[in-house]
Amino acid sequence: MSQPTTRVTRLPELQSTSREALFALLDATPLATIALIRDGRPVIFPIGFGRVGEALVIHGSTGSPWLRELAAGAQAAVSVTTLDGIEVARSAFESSFRYRSACVFGAFERVPDAEKDDLLKTLTDSFIPGRVAELRASTRKELAATLALRLPIGADNWSLKISDGWPDDPPEDIAAGAWAGVVPLSLVCGQPERAPDCDAAIPVPDSVRAMAGRPLR
Amino acid sequence: MSQPTTRVTRLPELQSTSREALFALLDATPLATIALIRDGRPVIFPIGFGRVGEALVIHGSTGSPWLRELAAGAQAAVSVTTLDGIEVARSAFESSFRYRSACVFGAFERVPDAEKDDLLKTLTDSFIPGRVAELRASTRKELAATLALRLPIGADNWSLKISDGWPDDPPEDIAAGAWAGVVPLSLVCGQPERAPDCDAAIPVPDSVRAMAGRPLR
Repeated sequence: MSQPTTRVTRLPELQSTSREALFALLDATPLATIALIRDGRPVIFPIGFGRVGEALVIHGSTGSPWLRELAAGAQAAVSVTTLDGIEVARSAFESSFRYRSACVFGAFERVPDAEKDDLLKTLTDSFIPGRVAELRASTRKELAATLALRLPIGADNWSLKISDGWPDDPPEDIAAGAWAGVVPLSLVCGQPERAPDCDAAIPVPDSVRAMAGRPLR
Repeated sequence: MSQPTTRVTRLPELQSTSREALFALLDATPLATIALIRDGRPVIFPIGFGRVGEALVIHGSTGSPWLRELAAGAQAAVSVTTLDGIEVARSAFESSFRYRSACVFGAFERVPDAEKDDLLKTLTDSFIPGRVAELRASTRKELAATLALRLPIGADNWSLKISDGWPDDPPEDIAAGAWAGVVPLSLVCGQPERAPDCDAAIPVPDSVRAMAGRPLR
């Protein structure tokens, strides 16, 4: 078997094969969790990521052991999940989350040096829209210290499961008259806080000001 | 080697050995991501979880293949991560997240039937405080259809990394006069939405009302 199955076993009716829905999830979520095998055991790491074109892109220090294992071709499983709400049912049993959950399988490839600067700029702007235009350029030393990796999102190396409905209570629970509904959840940006080493006269940049009070991504 | 290393390699100064800080993270976060090995490849699944005493507890359908693999003793790696803010530095290179990230290793054990109902109640109240008192009891059939698993949080099967500081820009970037700071992030509960099958006369329960507008957990 070339990769684990991408067929959703539990609640298979929630599986989505929409690439558009997959990209919407990846673009709405800054955090990926990545599993690989080390010495025969599973290990797992969280990391900020971005979707750039048809690939999932991560970056970090060239000295990071797990990123180096990925760069060397280790098989990976990547999970990206949002909790979009709490489904409050009329029983504990039917209570659940609204969520979107993607898994992408495969081996990451190293981003060639010639493409690294542009790719990292795209990644920076995906976390803080408009930020690159406000920043000084990256130095050669910074780029050299950064390992950038991408995992191609192919035709069949991913799965997507979307729970976006309402509690599914049996008729007798509905008839009993308890409340049911959903409490929406979102990852929200608060007001920017100035760093202790930043002079109070320096204005908050437009990119940062635009994030305040809004959902991230 | 009985388990992967719990020593933080990158930015080791961010490693915390505080069990209190670990529990604070676990109690603030509803989502765990769990890796295991299937047919020699890593697979990865998100799931709601709770900390109950000295263990991380999950539950789901007795028909779930991956939960059955865990119940059978598969080695697992569990990641629990919060993004607490965006560190906006004076360069892309120094920009990062404020985060707390835990990893717990080991094999889950099946919760005995005699303990399952109480444990699931604790779990329900950990997602929606006070909810159990508002709900009908779980039926024998519901309990029989639910697999509950726990992973003991021991003395040395976990690691914790906490980034809660400010951007760490070099003196020349600080002198250049750009802004730096942090944009806080939090997972916030919105206003409850009534299910389509719920009569408009039924009041929103206290437990749900108390969540609105507040950070989850």
